[in-house]
Amino acid sequence: MTIEGWASLPILLAAGREEALRPLLLQLVVIILAARGGGVVARWLRQPSVVGEIVAGLLLGPSAFGAWFPDLFAAVFRGGVAAPGGALEASLTSFSQVGLILLLFLIGVEFDFSHVRHQGRLAAGISLAGIAAPFVLGYGLALVMTPRLGALGGESTIDPRSFALFLGTAMSITAIPILGRILIEMGMQHTPLGATVVASAACDDAVGWTLLAAVSALATGGFEAGRIAGMVAATLGFAAACLFVVRPLLLPVLERSVRDDAAGDLGPRLPLGMLSVVLALLFVAAWITSRIGIFAIFGGFLLGASLSGVPKVRRALAAHLTDFVTVFFLPIFFTFTGLRTNIGSLGTPEAAGWCAAVFAVAVLGKWGGCGLAARIGGMPAGEASAVGVFMNTRALMELIVINVGMDLGVIPPAVYCMLVLMAIGTTLMATPLAARLLRGSPYEPTLVARGFLRG
Amino acid sequence: MTIEGWASLPILLAAGREEALRPLLLQLVVIILAARGGGVVARWLRQPSVVGEIVAGLLLGPSAFGAWFPDLFAAVFRGGVAAPGGALEASLTSFSQVGLILLLFLIGVEFDFSHVRHQGRLAAGISLAGIAAPFVLGYGLALVMTPRLGALGGESTIDPRSFALFLGTAMSITAIPILGRILIEMGMQHTPLGATVVASAACDDAVGWTLLAAVSALATGGFEAGRIAGMVAATLGFAAACLFVVRPLLLPVLERSVRDDAAGDLGPRLPLGMLSVVLALLFVAAWITSRIGIFAIFGGFLLGASLSGVPKVRRALAAHLTDFVTVFFLPIFFTFTGLRTNIGSLGTPEAAGWCAAVFAVAVLGKWGGCGLAARIGGMPAGEASAVGVFMNTRALMELIVINVGMDLGVIPPAVYCMLVLMAIGTTLMATPLAARLLRGSPYEPTLVARGFLRG
Repeated sequence: MTIEGWASLPILLAAGREEALRPLLLQLVVIILAARGGGVVARWLRQPSVVGEIVAGLLLGPSAFGAWFPDLFAAVFRGGVAAPGGALEASLTSFSQVGLILLLFLIGVEFDFSHVRHQGRLAAGISLAGIAAPFVLGYGLALVMTPRLGALGGESTIDPRSFALFLGTAMSITAIPILGRILIEMGMQHTPLGATVVASAACDDAVGWTLLAAVSALATGGFEAGRIAGMVAATLGFAAACLFVVRPLLLPVLERSVRDDAAGDLGPRLPLGMLSVVLALLFVAAWITSRIGIFAIFGGFLLGASLSGVPKVRRALAAHLTDFVTVFFLPIFFTFTGLRTNIGSLGTPEAAGWCAAVFAVAVLGKWGGCGLAARIGGMPAGEASAVGVFMNTRALMELIVINVGMDLGVIPPAVYCMLVLMAIGTTLMATPLAARLLRGSPYEPTLVARGFLRG
Repeated sequence: MTIEGWASLPILLAAGREEALRPLLLQLVVIILAARGGGVVARWLRQPSVVGEIVAGLLLGPSAFGAWFPDLFAAVFRGGVAAPGGALEASLTSFSQVGLILLLFLIGVEFDFSHVRHQGRLAAGISLAGIAAPFVLGYGLALVMTPRLGALGGESTIDPRSFALFLGTAMSITAIPILGRILIEMGMQHTPLGATVVASAACDDAVGWTLLAAVSALATGGFEAGRIAGMVAATLGFAAACLFVVRPLLLPVLERSVRDDAAGDLGPRLPLGMLSVVLALLFVAAWITSRIGIFAIFGGFLLGASLSGVPKVRRALAAHLTDFVTVFFLPIFFTFTGLRTNIGSLGTPEAAGWCAAVFAVAVLGKWGGCGLAARIGGMPAGEASAVGVFMNTRALMELIVINVGMDLGVIPPAVYCMLVLMAIGTTLMATPLAARLLRGSPYEPTLVARGFLRG
C-alpha cells in the first residue's frame, strides 16, 4: 500500500475524536453518580440498592429528566446526534451490551446447581406454580391486549403469538441475585424458609432463561418448524459443548492457576493469560448464541454456568470483574433501559389501565401461585404468603428479559414501559411486605435483630 | 409526552442492535487473543510481554493483517462501515479512550514521588540529559524534515513549530512502568543501579507529561499568547484543585474505607460507593482537561497522582481495576494504534530513510545523553551505558504520546508510523543490550540466577 493508500482506511481514526469523547465522559459521570445516588436513597428506605439504581436509570430518561429539563437532557444525552452518525449512542449501547454479557457470565458463574439438585418437593412445587400461573395469566392477558396493541404504539408487525409467549415469559421471571441479597439483609439466608425460597428461585431462573431462549427462537425463526428445529439443535449443541468440552478442559486449569495469596497482595487472582482466555471465550460464546438467534447474553450465561461450582474460580472471577461491572457497566444498562422507557406514554386512561392489569397479573400469578403452592405444601399461611412475596421480586432480571423483548420487536414501547414499572414495583414490595407477613413468625426476631438498614 | 412523542427520541434504541453487536464481539475476540499471543511470544523471546502486545496490535492493522488478508481484514475490522453511521468504529474508539483514561489514572496512582524527592544529583543529571538531548535532537530533525512533510503524507495544515516541538517531546519519553517490569525481571529493582534508573525515569515521566501538556496547549491554542496563558492557568488551577482539595478530602476517606479482609474473601476492596465516586471524579477530571485542551488522559493521570502514595488505597484500586484494564482495554488501545499504523507507508526510500533517522536520533539522544551523564557522574562505562539503554525504553508511553500527536494533527501518518516502530525497537533493544553491557559487572549474577524467562 502506498502512502496515499493509507487515506483509504475507512476507520474513524482522524483527529477530532477528543471532541467526540467529551459528551461520553459527561454521560458516564451523570450515569455513575445517579446510580450511586439512587442506591443510597434506596438504602435509606430499607430497600436493596439495586432498586434505587434502576429507578435512577428511569429518572435519567424521558420519563423525568427528559420531561422536566428537556434542554439539559438534550445537552447530556443527545449531544451525539450532532456528531456524525450518532456515534455517541452507539458507544453507550456497546458499553451496555458488553456489560450485560459480563454480568450474565458472572450470574452464570455464581449459579448454584446444588440448590436445584437438592431441593425438596416443596421447592419444586413452588417453582412450578411460580412459573405456570404467571405464564398462563400473562399469555391470557396478552390475548386480550392484542387488539389494542396499535393504540399502545405497537407496530402492525408485532406477531400476536410472539407477544403472548413473551408476555407470559416476562411474568414468570424471578430475580435470584436480588432475592439473595434481600434474604441476606433480612438475616434469613440460612433459615429453612430462606433455603426453600432460594431453591425455588434458582429453579425458576433456569426454567425462565430456557423459556426466554425458546421464545427468542420462535420469534426469530418466525415460527417455521425447520428454522426453529435448527436453532434448538444449535443451542443444545452449544450448551453441550460448554458443559462437556469447555468445562472439563478449562475448569481444572483455571482452578490450578488461581493464585490465592494468603500473604495477600490483591486477593485471589487468575493469571492475566487465563483471564484473557476466559474473556475471549466469553465473547466467542456470546457471538455464537447471537448468531443462533437467541441473543448474546445467553452465551455469557451458559459459559458462566459451565464454569460454576468451584469456589476458588468463582471468587477469582468475582474479584477480577464483579465490582467494575457493578459500578461501571450496570448503571449504563439501567440508563439505557431508562432512555427507552417513557412513563408519559402511559398518560391515557387506557394505557394506565393496561399498566395496572399487567401489574395485577404479575403479582397475582407469582405471589398467588407460589403462596398457594407453599400453603398446600404445609407452610403456615403467613410464611407461605411471604414466600410468594419473595418470589414476586423481578428487579434486574426482568429488565434484561424485557430488553430482549424490545430488541426482538415483540412488544410495543408502552408495554415495555409497563413491564419496567412492574419490575420496580414488585421489587419494592418485597422487603416491607415480607417483614409484615413474617411478624410473629419464627423469622421475625432475626429480622429485627439485624436492623437491616446497615450493611 | 404522548405515545407518539416517544418515537421522536433520537437515541438509537431500536431493534437490530444485536446484529450491530456481533462484529464488535468478533473484534474483541481477535484483539484479546492476538494481544495474549503476542505476549506469550514476547516471553519466549525473553522480552516484556507488553512489547508482544504492542506488536500484535500492529500486526492486526493494515501493516500485516490488512496487507496479507485484505478480505478477512475487511470482514473483521470494516464490518461496521456497512452498519449505519460507522457505529462499530466509534464503539471501539470509545473503549480505547475510556481504557486509556483508566490506565493513566492507574499509572498516576502508582506514581512514586519519593523516587523523585529522594533521588541524588546523579539521577537528576541523568534525567535532565535524558530529556534535553533527545528533545534538542528531535527538534532539529523536525526542522530538517519539515520541507518534506508533504511527501510523507502530511497535510499542509501541519504547523512546523508544533511538529518540531512535538517530535522533540516524543523523543524524550521514557516508559517507567515497562522499565520497572524489565528491572524486576532482571532482578535489579533493589540494586543501586536499578534505583538510579527508576528515579531518573520517574523524573523523566513527570517532565515528559508536562512537556506534552505544554505542546498540546501550544498546538491547540494556535500559539496565541492569550489562549495559551488561559490554558496554563486553567491547568495549574486544576492540578492545584486535585492536590489541595481532592487529595486531602478524598484520600483519608478512601484509606479508612478500604476493607482489607485478612480472612480474605476477595482481597483489598473499596466499598462500591467509593469506587463509584472515584470513577465519576475520574471522568470529571478527564472532561475538564479535555475541555482545557490538554487531552482527557491528563485528567486521569493528575487525579491518579493526587491519590498516590498510600499503599492501602493503591492496592485496592489496583485490585479493582488493573487486571481488567490490562486484559480488556489495553489490547483495544494497541489495536487502535495498529489500525492507524501502516508500515507500507514507509515503502519509499525517502520514507525509510527518515524512519532510520528518527530511530537513530531517538537512540542517540536518550542512550547517549543518559549514558554520558551517568559516566560523568562516576559510573563505570558498562553500567553507564546500560543506564542509557534502560532509559531508552519507550514502549507504551510513547504510543500514548504519539496518539496525542496524531489527534492534535501535528504529525503526518508516516511519521506516526515511524514513531510506533521507534517505540517498539527501543523497547526490544533494552533487555538483550543491557544484559550484554552488564556482563562482568556486579549486576550479572542476579541476571543469570533469575533466569528471567519465567515470571
